[in-house]
Amino acid sequence: MESLLDHIEVPSDLRQLKIEQLPQVCKELRDFIIDESSRNPGHFGASLGTVELTVALHYAFNTPEDRIIWDVGHQAYGHKIITGRKKVFPTNRKFGGLSGFPNPQESEYDSFIAGHASISISAAVGMALAAKAKGENRQIVAVIGDGALTGGEAFEALDYAGGSKANILVILNDNDMAIDANVGGLHQYLIDVITSPSYNKFRDKTWNFSAKLSQFGPDLREMFKKMGRGLKSLFFKESNLFESLGFRYFGPLDGHNVFQLTRTLQDIQKIPGPKILHIRTQKGKGFKPAEEEQTEWHAPRKFDKTTGEMIPLPDKDTIPPKYQEVFGETLLELAQKDARVMGVTPAMATGCSMNILMRAMPERAFDVGIAEQHAVTMSAGMAKEGMIPFCNIYSSFMQRAYDQVIHDVAIQNLHVIFCLDRAGLVGADGVTHHGMFDIPYMRAIPNMIVAAPLNEIELRNMMFTAYSTPSPFAIRYPRGNGEFLKWRQEMTLLPVGKGECLREGENVAVLTIGHVGNTALKAADKVYTEKGKMAGVYNMRWVKPIDTELVRNIAKSYQTIITVEDGILAGGFGSAVLETLQGTQFSGKVIRLGIDDAFVPHGTQQELYKMCGIDFDGIVTCIENEME
Amino acid sequence: MESLLDHIEVPSDLRQLKIEQLPQVCKELRDFIIDESSRNPGHFGASLGTVELTVALHYAFNTPEDRIIWDVGHQAYGHKIITGRKKVFPTNRKFGGLSGFPNPQESEYDSFIAGHASISISAAVGMALAAKAKGENRQIVAVIGDGALTGGEAFEALDYAGGSKANILVILNDNDMAIDANVGGLHQYLIDVITSPSYNKFRDKTWNFSAKLSQFGPDLREMFKKMGRGLKSLFFKESNLFESLGFRYFGPLDGHNVFQLTRTLQDIQKIPGPKILHIRTQKGKGFKPAEEEQTEWHAPRKFDKTTGEMIPLPDKDTIPPKYQEVFGETLLELAQKDARVMGVTPAMATGCSMNILMRAMPERAFDVGIAEQHAVTMSAGMAKEGMIPFCNIYSSFMQRAYDQVIHDVAIQNLHVIFCLDRAGLVGADGVTHHGMFDIPYMRAIPNMIVAAPLNEIELRNMMFTAYSTPSPFAIRYPRGNGEFLKWRQEMTLLPVGKGECLREGENVAVLTIGHVGNTALKAADKVYTEKGKMAGVYNMRWVKPIDTELVRNIAKSYQTIITVEDGILAGGFGSAVLETLQGTQFSGKVIRLGIDDAFVPHGTQQELYKMCGIDFDGIVTCIENEME
Repeated sequence: MESLLDHIEVPSDLRQLKIEQLPQVCKELRDFIIDESSRNPGHFGASLGTVELTVALHYAFNTPEDRIIWDVGHQAYGHKIITGRKKVFPTNRKFGGLSGFPNPQESEYDSFIAGHASISISAAVGMALAAKAKGENRQIVAVIGDGALTGGEAFEALDYAGGSKANILVILNDNDMAIDANVGGLHQYLIDVITSPSYNKFRDKTWNFSAKLSQFGPDLREMFKKMGRGLKSLFFKESNLFESLGFRYFGPLDGHNVFQLTRTLQDIQKIPGPKILHIRTQKGKGFKPAEEEQTEWHAPRKFDKTTGEMIPLPDKDTIPPKYQEVFGETLLELAQKDARVMGVTPAMATGCSMNILMRAMPERAFDVGIAEQHAVTMSAGMAKEGMIPFCNIYSSFMQRAYDQVIHDVAIQNLHVIFCLDRAGLVGADGVTHHGMFDIPYMRAIPNMIVAAPLNEIELRNMMFTAYSTPSPFAIRYPRGNGEFLKWRQEMTLLPVGKGECLREGENVAVLTIGHVGNTALKAADKVYTEKGKMAGVYNMRWVKPIDTELVRNIAKSYQTIITVEDGILAGGFGSAVLETLQGTQFSGKVIRLGIDDAFVPHGTQQELYKMCGIDFDGIVTCIENEME
Repeated sequence: MESLLDHIEVPSDLRQLKIEQLPQVCKELRDFIIDESSRNPGHFGASLGTVELTVALHYAFNTPEDRIIWDVGHQAYGHKIITGRKKVFPTNRKFGGLSGFPNPQESEYDSFIAGHASISISAAVGMALAAKAKGENRQIVAVIGDGALTGGEAFEALDYAGGSKANILVILNDNDMAIDANVGGLHQYLIDVITSPSYNKFRDKTWNFSAKLSQFGPDLREMFKKMGRGLKSLFFKESNLFESLGFRYFGPLDGHNVFQLTRTLQDIQKIPGPKILHIRTQKGKGFKPAEEEQTEWHAPRKFDKTTGEMIPLPDKDTIPPKYQEVFGETLLELAQKDARVMGVTPAMATGCSMNILMRAMPERAFDVGIAEQHAVTMSAGMAKEGMIPFCNIYSSFMQRAYDQVIHDVAIQNLHVIFCLDRAGLVGADGVTHHGMFDIPYMRAIPNMIVAAPLNEIELRNMMFTAYSTPSPFAIRYPRGNGEFLKWRQEMTLLPVGKGECLREGENVAVLTIGHVGNTALKAADKVYTEKGKMAGVYNMRWVKPIDTELVRNIAKSYQTIITVEDGILAGGFGSAVLETLQGTQFSGKVIRLGIDDAFVPHGTQQELYKMCGIDFDGIVTCIENEME
């Protein structure tokens, strides 16, 4: 059969087709995604689940004039492929290539950015209010997963949209999953919706009826109008969670039935005001291994698309562990040692390896779903009652709970330990996911201790020190692997606020924080090998309290100080060093290496370190320049 | 009649009384609050509305062993008075006195801090999980207003609590108001609940029945158990917004009927799992003027408790306006000038004076309720479609939407103007409300322009400049009054990134940001008058981009640089100056004045400025020391 996808560059090409041809488009699009992802890893499962929805949306709506906001954006590969980016799709998530998330700077079809969850409804409301003010009559669609729906902002937006009567369509893409299995009362509610027999009967009747109607031309508008809140509640007592908030609720539909989806979208767009269409999809749909192991196939490695075998992981005994694994194992050890230790994570149990504790001691680890604010305040509540919670949130997502860190934890001076995984440049996930602000935003907070380990053994020791220090405590560490095969050493207390000298040197001192210190050390050694001059290298360990004594001693012994950090420079670690140098007699130069005042795109971590001048070569060059 | 309140120092005294005596306690407590508040202004209306609830809670629960979390805390005056703080209540909100919000450091009866809204349910869940882990069988009650319930974190917590089966009681204190009238779909839902005739009939029957039962001893537990979700839905179709999330819902009750409240609280605490009790109260209850004008009496000035007359405001023509008024008037002018200008505020329409725009052009100003995250992303959506939103959020509440500022606004480089009212030390509201972190957290963000006006004329010009500059833009300004009677000057463009010299001087240069520059100027003039030496004074205006050229010129001309800011020092404005001085030949001293690494309590703004060394005397002393 001739390929249809070959002839679809943009959605207007798709809209030339007959509706009967859409299943074939879906099949080809799905095959395209599988084929590409098998060679170039990315977010896989979610995008397979939205193939029919993607095709139906672009068929039923007049994109890009109508706006589609994907929340979160990693379900949007199909969307990217049929909106002008098919040919460049092999560059997905690569340096200089396509972003793995929607990005308006990349395409006019990407209406809004969406790397973080739960924002789409708010954005849609803003767009709808703007359209109304300008007298523009466009459709605005937010596609939100059931995982993202648990984020508080989604509720704020539903509440406001319902009250404001904004003309938006929310599509609830319900696949039962965040990255890990979904949790919470809402989750149970959605299951109840789907399994309610009275509603299912009603639904089938309604949709059969609507199908008949559509054949003969009239749309569903009148019928839906008549089907008011009361009537609907009679048939289906559960539907009104959304109706309570002022939305018209439709569904649930089978999200893999492209005909039904398309016709429904064509019909309900004619109904004004806030609407929600609930569809059921399956993550990984159409690729059996991904249907069966959804968490594993959320973002798989390269795989054989015929057999479904992923390329094997390197043997655990041959490479150092990931930082996250060391976190997960160490947390379990601490929990086994002390009944007060608990784990809290917002929907990142697998990503941060808290699933290790969860499996071993399920009553001690709490995955609260995509709900960073709740995760932090709940941890504060635990700590207030004498527990010692380790709250693990990726650095860039911790921005969601900044107020709670200040208000609920730091002001009350509670013993909550924040582990900020994915701090610094994260690589392929790109601009929305780099954890580049945590040093300034955390060190500004009174009572907070802020630390970053040089390696995974130090991570263990810092976790142990944090456990032993009754204070708000933040430990930031990067995505990726540590340094040692034998990392499971006995944990020791680190003196808070004391850095260490890794190399004595002359003229130039390099002050580092965190994992990037390993690079700095290698760079200094290289310069020594080549030029015979050794720069001092200091692993500062603590952003706050910074080791004032050490900084002052360094100020006495060196002419130039280079600071190195994997984060934004404004207000960062280097700034803390500058602050500390005040009051000393240091009259030399301070060079701060880190992320300059610009957002950083996607690429490998190495490419991005290089771009920011904090890779091996960059640090070597900087030391050499100052040695001369 | 003999006073009962005189004999109540702590709740165990209250629990000695007969239930029949509670109305008298309520009356006396209410009179006490009215009397105190008439002389010593504070949050008035909310605390009057919770008198009966306060008495019922402490009567029915075994506090402090059982935990009560007030959300937000300004409804907790009655609670403070009957938990050991009656005698010191006249110190409420004063320097060294009681905090206007619950504070665990003040009393063991204050289970958790609550200056910011929407956190109580999360904290309660954390406490319940801790109690369970420790095998402690205590009750945990979160009292949350319908205003605070719209904050996303409250929903995150409801969702999680419902799924987790945590043993908590949420009391929804529904008074129809945030500080301004409440908004949103949830608000309408709660009205529907109250007016549903079928439910009212059902409710009356139930409660009458329960009253009868209680007389004879048996509790309601069995009855409620039998009254499952389905049955309840039959009677009352609307009740299941909360039931959908896994809560048992009770109510609505009259929150001013202390008998019914007490009996209900005694009964439902025996039911395990997550429960919500919906009560209706009236803000300002029992004080007629406050019942009638709830926004005005949220936090009134001193008043005559007999006549209800507030002490008159000074004549508008005799004192400079508040910054907020200048914001409000200027926003209206800009909106009249350009149809793209819009206003967005989360529940602070009166507090930030956006009500001026709201009254004049209701279709251009949007109060989204307590929902900072939504406010920011909705503004981003508007800007994405070509509008120019001014999003006004108090500095300390902007911490709630930090991620949205980065992710939705800055990364997309959208033209959203953030006006951060209440930046710096706010005075009597104290530790939770000081806007002391915005300089570091905002200046870390690429694309963001960060400014602070010296006075209200500069605020107008900055707003005009922000309107004219298509970039993310943050303007921070303080609580309180400006400098000029004739502030309504024609708006002019300020060159972005250019500061100004207020005084040329020698030896010492004072670099200031924002309103505190006025104090610095007076201080420098004082030193000149007394010592004949003039310090240079520079109004830097822009935290970012900072005026690099000006800083470098200053570095050439002075030996000492003093920076002054109304914010935290770590990573703040002074730090930005230090960063800028790198690469210059400056070898002098930099002294940074601002808020040191500690939280700041409550008091008058003057008392707090003094405490932080940024008042007139503090700056004079600092300049003098450096002049010698």
